[in-house]
Amino acid sequence: MPERNLYLNNLPLDDAIQKYFNALEGLLIPRTEKIAAEDSFDRITAKAIYADCSSPPYNAAAMDGIAVIAACTADASETNPITLFPLNTCQREGCCTSVKTSYRDAKPDSSVAFTIVNTGDPVLPPWDAVIMAEDITPLDDGSVQIREAATAWQHVRPIGEDIVAGEMILPGNHCIKPADIGVMLSGGLAEIEVIAKPRVAILPTGSEFLTGRLIESNSRMLAANVQRDKGIPRCYPPTPDNIEKLRYAILDAVKKHDLVLVNAGSSAGTEDYTVQVLRELGEVIVHGIAIKPGKPVILAIVDKKPVIGIPGYPVSAYLDYELFAGKIVKILGKQAETVPVKAQAVIARRIVSSLKHREYVRIQTGRVDNKLIAVPLARGAGAAMSLVRANGFCIIEQNSEGIEAGQTADVELFDPLDKVDKTILVIGSHDLILDLIADLMQSSGNASLASTHTGSMAGLMSLKRNECHITPIHLLDEESGTYNIPFVKRLFPQTPMLMIKGVGRIQGLMIKKGNPLKINSLSDLPGCRYINRQRGAGTRLFLDYKLKQAGILPEQVQGYEREAATHMAAAAVVAGGGADTAMGIYSAAKALGLDFIPLGNEEYDFVLYPEFLKLPHIKRFLEILTNSGFHKQLEILGGYTWDKVGSIINIV
Amino acid sequence: MPERNLYLNNLPLDDAIQKYFNALEGLLIPRTEKIAAEDSFDRITAKAIYADCSSPPYNAAAMDGIAVIAACTADASETNPITLFPLNTCQREGCCTSVKTSYRDAKPDSSVAFTIVNTGDPVLPPWDAVIMAEDITPLDDGSVQIREAATAWQHVRPIGEDIVAGEMILPGNHCIKPADIGVMLSGGLAEIEVIAKPRVAILPTGSEFLTGRLIESNSRMLAANVQRDKGIPRCYPPTPDNIEKLRYAILDAVKKHDLVLVNAGSSAGTEDYTVQVLRELGEVIVHGIAIKPGKPVILAIVDKKPVIGIPGYPVSAYLDYELFAGKIVKILGKQAETVPVKAQAVIARRIVSSLKHREYVRIQTGRVDNKLIAVPLARGAGAAMSLVRANGFCIIEQNSEGIEAGQTADVELFDPLDKVDKTILVIGSHDLILDLIADLMQSSGNASLASTHTGSMAGLMSLKRNECHITPIHLLDEESGTYNIPFVKRLFPQTPMLMIKGVGRIQGLMIKKGNPLKINSLSDLPGCRYINRQRGAGTRLFLDYKLKQAGILPEQVQGYEREAATHMAAAAVVAGGGADTAMGIYSAAKALGLDFIPLGNEEYDFVLYPEFLKLPHIKRFLEILTNSGFHKQLEILGGYTWDKVGSIINIV
Repeated sequence: MPERNLYLNNLPLDDAIQKYFNALEGLLIPRTEKIAAEDSFDRITAKAIYADCSSPPYNAAAMDGIAVIAACTADASETNPITLFPLNTCQREGCCTSVKTSYRDAKPDSSVAFTIVNTGDPVLPPWDAVIMAEDITPLDDGSVQIREAATAWQHVRPIGEDIVAGEMILPGNHCIKPADIGVMLSGGLAEIEVIAKPRVAILPTGSEFLTGRLIESNSRMLAANVQRDKGIPRCYPPTPDNIEKLRYAILDAVKKHDLVLVNAGSSAGTEDYTVQVLRELGEVIVHGIAIKPGKPVILAIVDKKPVIGIPGYPVSAYLDYELFAGKIVKILGKQAETVPVKAQAVIARRIVSSLKHREYVRIQTGRVDNKLIAVPLARGAGAAMSLVRANGFCIIEQNSEGIEAGQTADVELFDPLDKVDKTILVIGSHDLILDLIADLMQSSGNASLASTHTGSMAGLMSLKRNECHITPIHLLDEESGTYNIPFVKRLFPQTPMLMIKGVGRIQGLMIKKGNPLKINSLSDLPGCRYINRQRGAGTRLFLDYKLKQAGILPEQVQGYEREAATHMAAAAVVAGGGADTAMGIYSAAKALGLDFIPLGNEEYDFVLYPEFLKLPHIKRFLEILTNSGFHKQLEILGGYTWDKVGSIINIV
Repeated sequence: MPERNLYLNNLPLDDAIQKYFNALEGLLIPRTEKIAAEDSFDRITAKAIYADCSSPPYNAAAMDGIAVIAACTADASETNPITLFPLNTCQREGCCTSVKTSYRDAKPDSSVAFTIVNTGDPVLPPWDAVIMAEDITPLDDGSVQIREAATAWQHVRPIGEDIVAGEMILPGNHCIKPADIGVMLSGGLAEIEVIAKPRVAILPTGSEFLTGRLIESNSRMLAANVQRDKGIPRCYPPTPDNIEKLRYAILDAVKKHDLVLVNAGSSAGTEDYTVQVLRELGEVIVHGIAIKPGKPVILAIVDKKPVIGIPGYPVSAYLDYELFAGKIVKILGKQAETVPVKAQAVIARRIVSSLKHREYVRIQTGRVDNKLIAVPLARGAGAAMSLVRANGFCIIEQNSEGIEAGQTADVELFDPLDKVDKTILVIGSHDLILDLIADLMQSSGNASLASTHTGSMAGLMSLKRNECHITPIHLLDEESGTYNIPFVKRLFPQTPMLMIKGVGRIQGLMIKKGNPLKINSLSDLPGCRYINRQRGAGTRLFLDYKLKQAGILPEQVQGYEREAATHMAAAAVVAGGGADTAMGIYSAAKALGLDFIPLGNEEYDFVLYPEFLKLPHIKRFLEILTNSGFHKQLEILGGYTWDKVGSIINIV
């Protein structure tokens, strides 16, 4: 193990940014390069671009027809048509001579010449006008008759009408559009000078990645971030936790790139190596900032180039990239700073935060009843899926202890507001079919569905607070033996509600393939390691109901207090050997190849306020439920019935 | 010549779109392809993507420290520290056996083992908890002491905590973000199925391009359009106007691509060939639509694939691409339809339009005094520079005869409104320094300058109507012999105005290099071919003043009625031999290598309302005027003096 680096700062973010960018003052100078104008789409001009030649490059015919000397046609009229002869075939005396003399000497003459021109052809002296093909009468001998005089320069595009040689076509620092390329080429520019794309080295470190035991995914995420910011990423193979090799890799990367990102493994040990090497090779300006996730970032300068130690946890890596590395890529590439969409949203669940740091909480947002709602997602730095599912951040300032549910807070959105407006927010019980529906909504292109899994009861509370559009529930009323409706009536006593029938599904015990412990029924639970679902989850209530029936006390079930948030999470713990069994739905057991002991059929339905039924994306939701493509996918998942799906029940 | 194709339709745009896309019904099916997940940034998922493995893939240490069996640490406390021995070095009896037996049989024991783990390391049976490095006391013999019991699964990330195998990671039809790539890799997906980028063939035609006499620039502009719309463009070399060769090229392109754009030369003849061949090879659905520019588009289907004949003029080509081809590229690539920014703007100059077609007028927009102002630009289909300079379109419907100056109309903007808000609108007299200033404003990154050249008088009228921020003028008051101020006083009698001093510049006659006609002074103008500037231009008034002094009548000057809109345009006509001389500024003559006869010094200044001086982009304008970098560039242009530049005069 290297020496532990306990000297982590807790510098406020703004101070860290100021300190680092002050230290980088004068070092972040964009490079330029020459490229073919035709390959320059979306590049940034390094300086103003001036036309090399004019367009049109000569006086050019603006129509298909004949070029003539205007003065020679002056006498033509309806009553006095005049005949013109093709330049190269005309035998008439005087005609070709008149053409050969200069314009200034040309005289009106009935025996004059013409030449055929297509649009774009040059109209060179002595010609000074074009007569359209439609306005001439061809005669059999190749000559033509005209019945109207041409005025000088008619149907002629003067040289430089569009672009004049020497004229500025584009200013510097301009992002090149398709039309610009056409004009540059017309202006005679084959090659132009643009801002070079910054080269960014991404150096994953950590011996754990060399064994292939763990997938090194951060470097590819960072590479895509660099790509998005218009840089050129280059991923090095992982460097083991070895001072010598790390030093060599960093020096090589600094030499060949404009910015180096050293992506630590998730181990604190790897970070220690990185700091040690960076201190030795250059200067570490900041190590550790007061944000969460992303705290252990290292901001350094080696050989006048920025080198950033990015923490190993994916969410930390993402955030530190955005806060520091992305800014540098954009400065070096002269890309405009991207301004996030800022909005005010009602926070759907309490967020507790520490005074020690500014916290970036991933959120799902949607518009419910004209209010923007933000649902906080998993907060661990390792929860990469939360980045995928989030469409924004809620930022809890360092001096705040958090935000209560129902309070309004500032949020930054990744998506434009009109996309957020088409999102159905679902909070409640988890089922795999929510993902199916989300897929079908997104694939039809018009709407998306964001679901948060709090369990049935917590979901109904969210619905009551107007924090979601739809709450999926499966709640067995022990008294009546019926599902769901009694709970809705109890929680919304004064309010008429709607229930959209969902699916019937099989609940039971999920058990390791082959059932090594020979679990046969609920009575075998004592003595097994169990993993439970969160409080308020229908599946947990179902377990409690079944335990009571079987006369088993919760204390007798080892692991009753261990919680997983979804059927799939519980199944994964069983599949991975962390527990012997868990209650869950058949489809989750099937998805992870577990054995299954069915314990009951239950009804998984959707609750909502009646007025939401007219929203276009809720209509789409209903359409999907009753679509045969959806039913086919239910069959593949297994363990579902859908005879009533999509029917609507008024609960009054 | 091929048979002329006079059967051009005049189909309204909406009908044309409906007719063509009806004919294409069922033919525009996006292809899919498999690519490496790590290369999938910004691609569109072809279908939902499910995790192949869980992340973490096993129960994993969440901290650096030691893995233990929680039950074996139950007795540890401050007063009763217990000692643990490293698994492989421990010699105590019973210890290693307890480790070798399964978790279920492990007993609390003071002689227990541990193993060192780094964050991310697997915590496999019998281990079920991690104690942080900070919470252990290492002893000299390699054993450690703990003073607190570990609870089962503490500091252990359960398998699948982030991603569960079988779980849906991304829905179909989803545009892949950087964070998605990290999660896909963590979820064990090396390869994924995405929508293939549509392949688009671009076939320039027209014999004129084969000689190299004309630059074929449209195909590169179209290629960049395809690139922007996320397709893969392929430009063919130009095909001559030859039925046989065109047929062969189109068949080849159709076979290998999803969409074929046949880009006609600007000649009507080439278009005829294209229609003829497309009729023969497939079906021409529409030929000719009621829009301007862009009328002669050909919408065809060959071998079930869309083939579009794009007209040769650049603005027509651009517009027909956007209206038809771009839509198809986006459908095939499943890219969201881009919705232009729509706004209402006051039209600064009268636009006359025909009832025969819908017209797309390029506009420059900016915000003046809280109103969005749109200044119409050159309208010719060949005016490619107008596309470069425009930041939007004003669409004049087919049933409208046009829009009067000062009327409000619907406009579509290429740029977001906040960029439009940072644009200084300049209307008035032309000088090359306007481009210089525009470059310096854009290069500093914060603002842009859009100038329209109407001449000084028309510019002052625009200023009076609040249609621009700044009007550059050079108007000689014949009575007083002074510049500019008398005109401002006369036109704004009640209103206090500001004038920012600009540059002194030399006006004179621009003459072909070597002065072949031996022009020596204004008295040589009769007998020369002249090109004039537009009515109201200061340069025209200066000519009139000088002609009067010299006793020459306008009628004596051949070409007095021919107008060019800028100094550079007039100079280009002289350089190209279309005229023998023109009045203009020294810098324009110098830029095009013309000889020059100086006729006077004049003052080119900027007029504005006092309240605009506080706008940040106007402040920037002022800063640039007084900057030495700007003065250096004036020196290079030549013919300028700048002793008073940037000083402000109140005109009351």
